[in-house]
Amino acid sequence: MPRGLTLTPLPGIPEVRPGDDLAGLVLQALRRAGIALQDGDVLVLAQKVVSKAEGRFARLEDVTPSPRAQELARRTHKDPRLVELVLQESAAVLRAVPGVLIVEHRLGFVCANAGIDRSNVPPQGPEGEWVLLLPRDPDASAARLRAAWERASGARLGVLIVDSHGRAWRLGTVGMAIGLAGLPALVDLRGQPDRQGYVLQVTQVAVADELAAAASLMMGQAAEGTPVVHVRGFPYPLAEGRLAHLLRPRERDLFR
Amino acid sequence: MPRGLTLTPLPGIPEVRPGDDLAGLVLQALRRAGIALQDGDVLVLAQKVVSKAEGRFARLEDVTPSPRAQELARRTHKDPRLVELVLQESAAVLRAVPGVLIVEHRLGFVCANAGIDRSNVPPQGPEGEWVLLLPRDPDASAARLRAAWERASGARLGVLIVDSHGRAWRLGTVGMAIGLAGLPALVDLRGQPDRQGYVLQVTQVAVADELAAAASLMMGQAAEGTPVVHVRGFPYPLAEGRLAHLLRPRERDLFR
Repeated sequence: MPRGLTLTPLPGIPEVRPGDDLAGLVLQALRRAGIALQDGDVLVLAQKVVSKAEGRFARLEDVTPSPRAQELARRTHKDPRLVELVLQESAAVLRAVPGVLIVEHRLGFVCANAGIDRSNVPPQGPEGEWVLLLPRDPDASAARLRAAWERASGARLGVLIVDSHGRAWRLGTVGMAIGLAGLPALVDLRGQPDRQGYVLQVTQVAVADELAAAASLMMGQAAEGTPVVHVRGFPYPLAEGRLAHLLRPRERDLFR
Repeated sequence: MPRGLTLTPLPGIPEVRPGDDLAGLVLQALRRAGIALQDGDVLVLAQKVVSKAEGRFARLEDVTPSPRAQELARRTHKDPRLVELVLQESAAVLRAVPGVLIVEHRLGFVCANAGIDRSNVPPQGPEGEWVLLLPRDPDASAARLRAAWERASGARLGVLIVDSHGRAWRLGTVGMAIGLAGLPALVDLRGQPDRQGYVLQVTQVAVADELAAAASLMMGQAAEGTPVVHVRGFPYPLAEGRLAHLLRPRERDLFR
């Protein structure tokens, strides 16, 4: 049988709390699943477990909305305290209509609500309405996890942190890369030469986003989902990709 | 080891010509790869092989550009004959700037150049500059292939036709669904209940696009690529999805 790509969701990752040793929890889950890490393997993590381990919780009761947040909350019919947090996490507001608040996240990508999720599993702390922000620097989070897993396994690995985003033009969310370490973000594919045979069309393929979508498919439901997916057979050499490689510069973006 | 998703690119699909029995070529490739189709398997095809089998070639020398095509060609620095074909395949032009022509394809999705590719492998016919259009009705193409493969195998299958598209806001192309049969396009995932425990956030996940991205990752280079990928372990029940399910209605689209 020819060589393929295998994505294995890891069962048994417990509810992650701030300060938990996420790297260690994943190593335990890998052992239980009978998977020994090999050179070229990639581990893909849902943003939520990374954010929880990093303690990226905020309590709405502690937030004082600015006048701008109050105005946007009226326009979008959203909680002004949530909108305040969205603004704090954003570089620009792209669209604000009833039910929809789309921003450029401070990390550079475009998404709804700055990727902030309601959380029904609050951290240790006072009662209240808790939300979960994205990791502060997902590339750095991925790099730290990679270092821990490479140390533990002796294998050369890639690490990818993903979140589900909506898209312009198409319905439904898909998994997209928000942080990575050890694998390429973009790969140049040389197309066919033209009829004269001398001009190669070069296409850049967002392989990190393609892998993010693939892994996301296997993460399943939020409630009983599996937030970590082991990947074997990634078809490109490992390389030092970064989130910034995937972001269209504002001045080359026709759809803001 | 827990149940995972396996994507296997099928080697040995020859250059496809108009009128070729694509279903039969894939069955031969499956046999050579030692893969027996099972209930729930999905076959993913690059648009190019489907279009070639369906003879969706056009020769630029046979195209007379309209005044509108000539004007857009000046604006985009593209061949006016190519632009004429793009317009014939499109419902609306979204953006036209030097080097870039983004349209709503007549099939409803947004993409560059209406998905028309230069082709360096012309069909039987006169010399000239040939291009390849998307299949006329990719959902119908997928349904025909599915029927043939289900007949041959006795298994219940999904079929997905994919193309690589650019995105707003992000660099690089990713594989996206342009036609499907036998698998869902969108799946409702119930999120966690809110703190009061009674409101479930429902998210629609574009699982067909996630699978399209996954398979596209394994199709590799245009020149020596493998345009058909066998998928085992798709994590949702087969269902009657269609391209239209993935398309955001114009009136709900904030980014045109």
